[in-house]
Amino acid sequence: MKTIQITSIQKNYKIVIKNNLLNHLSDYLDVNKLYVIISDDKIPFEYIERVQKACPNNLIITFPEGEKSKSFEQYERIISILQDNNVTRDACIIALGGGVTGDLSGFIASTYLRGLDLIQIPTSLLAQIDSSVGGKVAINTEKAKNSVGSFYPPSLVLIDPLTLKTLSLRHFNNGMAEMIKYGMIYSKDLFDKILNDEVKENLEYFIYESLIIKKFFVENDEFDKGLRQILNFGHTYGHAYEAYYNFKRYFHGESIALGMLDVCDNEIVKEELLKILHKYNLPTKDSVDKDSLVPYIKNDKKQTKEYLNLIVVDEIGKAKIKKVRL
Amino acid sequence: MKTIQITSIQKNYKIVIKNNLLNHLSDYLDVNKLYVIISDDKIPFEYIERVQKACPNNLIITFPEGEKSKSFEQYERIISILQDNNVTRDACIIALGGGVTGDLSGFIASTYLRGLDLIQIPTSLLAQIDSSVGGKVAINTEKAKNSVGSFYPPSLVLIDPLTLKTLSLRHFNNGMAEMIKYGMIYSKDLFDKILNDEVKENLEYFIYESLIIKKFFVENDEFDKGLRQILNFGHTYGHAYEAYYNFKRYFHGESIALGMLDVCDNEIVKEELLKILHKYNLPTKDSVDKDSLVPYIKNDKKQTKEYLNLIVVDEIGKAKIKKVRL
Repeated sequence: MKTIQITSIQKNYKIVIKNNLLNHLSDYLDVNKLYVIISDDKIPFEYIERVQKACPNNLIITFPEGEKSKSFEQYERIISILQDNNVTRDACIIALGGGVTGDLSGFIASTYLRGLDLIQIPTSLLAQIDSSVGGKVAINTEKAKNSVGSFYPPSLVLIDPLTLKTLSLRHFNNGMAEMIKYGMIYSKDLFDKILNDEVKENLEYFIYESLIIKKFFVENDEFDKGLRQILNFGHTYGHAYEAYYNFKRYFHGESIALGMLDVCDNEIVKEELLKILHKYNLPTKDSVDKDSLVPYIKNDKKQTKEYLNLIVVDEIGKAKIKKVRL
Repeated sequence: MKTIQITSIQKNYKIVIKNNLLNHLSDYLDVNKLYVIISDDKIPFEYIERVQKACPNNLIITFPEGEKSKSFEQYERIISILQDNNVTRDACIIALGGGVTGDLSGFIASTYLRGLDLIQIPTSLLAQIDSSVGGKVAINTEKAKNSVGSFYPPSLVLIDPLTLKTLSLRHFNNGMAEMIKYGMIYSKDLFDKILNDEVKENLEYFIYESLIIKKFFVENDEFDKGLRQILNFGHTYGHAYEAYYNFKRYFHGESIALGMLDVCDNEIVKEELLKILHKYNLPTKDSVDKDSLVPYIKNDKKQTKEYLNLIVVDEIGKAKIKKVRL
């Protein structure tokens, strides 16, 4: 078992990373509290059952799997269900699932009755090493991803790496793109281990190392005013690919893989990046004309009226923010 | 001129109360910044013009006047306009108008791109003494008022009491209900002055005294976990009246007048309250059966699964929280 403590201006919280944690949830939940378990309709049902076992007083709400559910429509629908069930401020929302579940449930938790407690139980690699930590929650609009949301820290993050065993290889590799990003922006050592070791054989370690990097950025810039933007390496073009293809062609990590390559000018770095992306079967080229992506980039949150903040990596393990005009 | 500094865990901010302030806005606004001025379609156009004069780089968005506009529909529509105009994170939203404008614009500011700067320029008495200060922003659902929202402090509150000169008497008295509430819960002295003096002749003073009381509650309980609930005196039944009549019959303050009376068991207090409500032509009785209000009260945010927190006043100037079962 490994734990990480995150310090936040709004609310400090703990991350627990532990194999088989899903079978020990009663150590972390309050038997008398109402828990609203929000999940997508493709989650293995046994995960829901294990959570239910630890909190007999529960309400389960599911939504259709996929990025498309980070919508005003699902947001309003779920809020309406909470009201129909008279869910009050002393309830706690559990986001059980991948990144979409965490983002959507988190935005609901941050705004329903001006805020309910939130526990993140991420079950995908992407959610475990990235989206469940740091407090960013959001839904998409038709024009831009994550363009409506909040900074809303969870009160607890519970990570069971064994849930990754049921993940398809494509979903697993999708998460690997974000792990590769951590190596690219902050740790040559992590990058090399991802390239040379068997990540699946030591998941607790790799998840912990990834989150220690995330901790550094979110604690130093909780509200994304500067430093934290480095975590967005690959995301400027990445988000644009997702939106251009209407969130249908690529998973998030896959588009980030393309987005990292697009901002890589250094040939040596690019070669290493290609090598590691190939190892995890991530896409390395797309036929779309870059000009077609520009309208989507203009809606990117990282942009100001004056310039676009682009994150670049000229040496593996070191990133910087470059201001460019579009 | 009077100023008040509000200390907040999220963001400290200043309130400026000054007659004719609308003609000196350039002292407070940045000429280079993009300001999105959000207002309802019944605002005197000269107010918009005065704001525009102080910030040449502006975008004006209006919505239909009235509580009904605190809806998912208007929320989504305005967010879509912000996106169509490529409004980025360095812009600032100005909420110019009454309580509805402040609540709706504030919720947009709190969630669009995970948060833009917000300046409140309240032009109704209710907004000047209450809703523009304290960071509560929200929209309504069909089932309950303010049931979706955030705690999101403005960066500045600019109050020009002269805007109240154009207010109809009904709107002015609507605000007086909240001022009476401050007297009821915290200050016999303020209550007596409201009853005996001419409020309209000394607006700066009465607004300042009201906000000093609000400051005490919001600084001691920013996230509404306990003490701040006292500000909700009259609001449990008040919100229920509003919802029962589908936000059509009463203004907010009018329903609060009824709601204060409903929880007044002490005959001497009740008599004083009736006297002051009559002076400001506020409603003191409604024909609805109390049982019909219960479903609306059950959706009230102040309720937990166990009990309802009802605010009661047994002596003018002193309130307490009473836990009751419905």
